[in-house]
Amino acid sequence: MKPSLTIIKVGGAVVEDEAQLTQLLRDFTAIQGPKILVHGGGRRATKIAERLGIETKMIDGRRITDAEMLEVVTMVYGGLVNKNVVARLQALGCNAIGLTGADANILLSQKRPLKMVNGEPVDYGFVGDVKQTSGSKIAHFIDADLIPVIAPLTHDGQGHMLNTNADTMASETAKAMAAVGYDVTLIYAFEKPGVLRDADDDNSVIATINHADFETYKADGTISGGMLPKIENALAAIDAGVKRVIITKATAIDGQHRTVITK
Amino acid sequence: MKPSLTIIKVGGAVVEDEAQLTQLLRDFTAIQGPKILVHGGGRRATKIAERLGIETKMIDGRRITDAEMLEVVTMVYGGLVNKNVVARLQALGCNAIGLTGADANILLSQKRPLKMVNGEPVDYGFVGDVKQTSGSKIAHFIDADLIPVIAPLTHDGQGHMLNTNADTMASETAKAMAAVGYDVTLIYAFEKPGVLRDADDDNSVIATINHADFETYKADGTISGGMLPKIENALAAIDAGVKRVIITKATAIDGQHRTVITK
Repeated sequence: MKPSLTIIKVGGAVVEDEAQLTQLLRDFTAIQGPKILVHGGGRRATKIAERLGIETKMIDGRRITDAEMLEVVTMVYGGLVNKNVVARLQALGCNAIGLTGADANILLSQKRPLKMVNGEPVDYGFVGDVKQTSGSKIAHFIDADLIPVIAPLTHDGQGHMLNTNADTMASETAKAMAAVGYDVTLIYAFEKPGVLRDADDDNSVIATINHADFETYKADGTISGGMLPKIENALAAIDAGVKRVIITKATAIDGQHRTVITK
Repeated sequence: MKPSLTIIKVGGAVVEDEAQLTQLLRDFTAIQGPKILVHGGGRRATKIAERLGIETKMIDGRRITDAEMLEVVTMVYGGLVNKNVVARLQALGCNAIGLTGADANILLSQKRPLKMVNGEPVDYGFVGDVKQTSGSKIAHFIDADLIPVIAPLTHDGQGHMLNTNADTMASETAKAMAAVGYDVTLIYAFEKPGVLRDADDDNSVIATINHADFETYKADGTISGGMLPKIENALAAIDAGVKRVIITKATAIDGQHRTVITK
């Protein structure tokens, strides 16, 4: 039987809300067996950038990362958010270890080339597209009874850190762990109880979504915006051998209301 | 025969100077056998704090760390400096892993109580005095062929990060590694070729200093200021079983000019 592994991805909005973070860390600590936490921190980075007089530019919900913004996200994701989460997990008796992709070379990426967005070439700057994730290196930490807490940063192997989408980090990690023999459950924990039919109605959670459902919901506009790449990531993970992907509320990760992504 | 281990502590002034850092990382990479890098970053923290409108207060060369300054040092030491050093070492083929005391719970500290300085009680704020260093946990990383890069931050076991002196982190790490059976060489790498008889003459390096020498140099004023706690740390490390402590120039760590601290 494959060993089970739970990977939770938690977004910036939860990480920055004291009550939500406390609840999530308690629930995370209570999970039996090997586990990994992947966190965001975008809102905090935006606030610190503002205080430093650095303007935040976004295109289609993605941050443009120039040299100054790279310093901000490296500080905020790799330092402020990551180390505070690690310290708090340690206080809960959870032997956490904070990691970026550069640490032990677990996630290597390449700087994103120019991309066409709405017919215009966009330079995202120091943003990394994940090229290689080492499941065996991450497994080594788990074998040592450590609990990886992963910040959304990678490196290019040439001495530079790169800003990397936290959802992608989570799905790439899940795929790599499935590839080295784990029975992986990936949970995207955010503010809503799941993928909603009606954005204003928390009781309209869609229970399951497979490839065909996704195409339908995309076509009829039920699913749009930032939820699209999240579900694309989730489906890619399922296709690559991840056992189950769940999208649910950060303060009720083991609750009844949740969306399960299936094959 | 005990396995050898080299621990290099490099200060903020070197970390922030591109040419010096490049040289130091190259020399560090060239060291054979297990090794650990401990870094500072105080000048960078002071600059970022200034840009954030946070005033830096120092007493006797030690930073007063209020809640806002704790956020700055956690960002700068744990994120900006640590991750950039890790990424650069990875590019040199050195499988580095960035750590603070909270990561894997390697260095636990307690918040410093009020201290009397020049007859006045001083509250250093969120500053940690190291209480426990786990040599066996650090050895686990070394056994996995990883190279720890340690930032000057610890945690209190109750969910809080604490700012911790980098020289102390280095000597506590050296002592803990000696206690688990390593033949430890601790090198304090800074701007000068060693401890100088005459601060203005780089050719006046004192070749060796033992306890008795230190008392003499302290009494006659040859050694003063920031060099005092550095040598006290070094002598404490020697007394606790560290094989040798060397104080030398960061750009010539294997050079001829150096001060060796002995029993």
